[in-house]
Amino acid sequence: MVETRENVMLIEELTRQASLDVLAGARLGRLACAQGPQPYVVPFYFVYHHNYLYSFSTVGQKIEWMRANPLVCVEADEVVSPHRWVSVIVFGRYEELPDTPESQPERAFAAELLQQYAMWWEPGYARTILHGTERPLEPVFYRIYIAVITGRRATLD
Amino acid sequence: MVETRENVMLIEELTRQASLDVLAGARLGRLACAQGPQPYVVPFYFVYHHNYLYSFSTVGQKIEWMRANPLVCVEADEVVSPHRWVSVIVFGRYEELPDTPESQPERAFAAELLQQYAMWWEPGYARTILHGTERPLEPVFYRIYIAVITGRRATLD
Repeated sequence: MVETRENVMLIEELTRQASLDVLAGARLGRLACAQGPQPYVVPFYFVYHHNYLYSFSTVGQKIEWMRANPLVCVEADEVVSPHRWVSVIVFGRYEELPDTPESQPERAFAAELLQQYAMWWEPGYARTILHGTERPLEPVFYRIYIAVITGRRATLD
Repeated sequence: MVETRENVMLIEELTRQASLDVLAGARLGRLACAQGPQPYVVPFYFVYHHNYLYSFSTVGQKIEWMRANPLVCVEADEVVSPHRWVSVIVFGRYEELPDTPESQPERAFAAELLQQYAMWWEPGYARTILHGTERPLEPVFYRIYIAVITGRRATLD
């Protein structure tokens, strides 16, 4: 018997909840910010919790750009092939959680949430040498408010 | 014997050539564009050739935004863990390759280059159903001019 039926790629829009579920199961994503007309995108690790993505970073170009323009976009995906993938895109807003009395509750919550992923934090690992000098250990805690989320899943029919 | 030496994450800056080599070996990346202050990032497949990234897409938000603002950022990486990864970031410029006499040589070159990756193109696969209707097959060919490229590699010492 000869299979004559064509393969067709189906692209399915995910519901908001299904899109959030993808984020909840992801750790690695890509974070885009912009300075004037120039976008910038980097990989980052995050933890999803109640409509926010929590993360931390040392100060650098990404943090400086997001402080100046808090509008960001986050993408997380599981790509098996060009025709089998799920991808979620968030339009969001950067919120820094500084070490101030007002931000203390959210900052403590973020630290607790992120410390569950101990491997990111092992003290030895946290020592990072860049350009032959040790990077400051002082982390910037931040979260991304999820304003809009969309998701798509592609499968072969 | 007890190993008391700390693990230290070393971050090494890649040379321009080493960064281009990562791109040349990559197919999947993330492409960021921006409309006003809002960045947007999506996964995309590309082929590197002589300081350009070649790709194609159907018309949609990404193409419309890049037509209006050609400044883009591309990120490609191989992430093994938070402490073992290589990541390359390109600041570039979107160049569409329309079906016009002036663009014909570059467009034909792009089509030939991309057709080497036959799996992206198998006729059956190209039929895509979104929202229950078939998407137009007309591809937009484009390339990203690599204006600036940087790369970093993290390893555990």
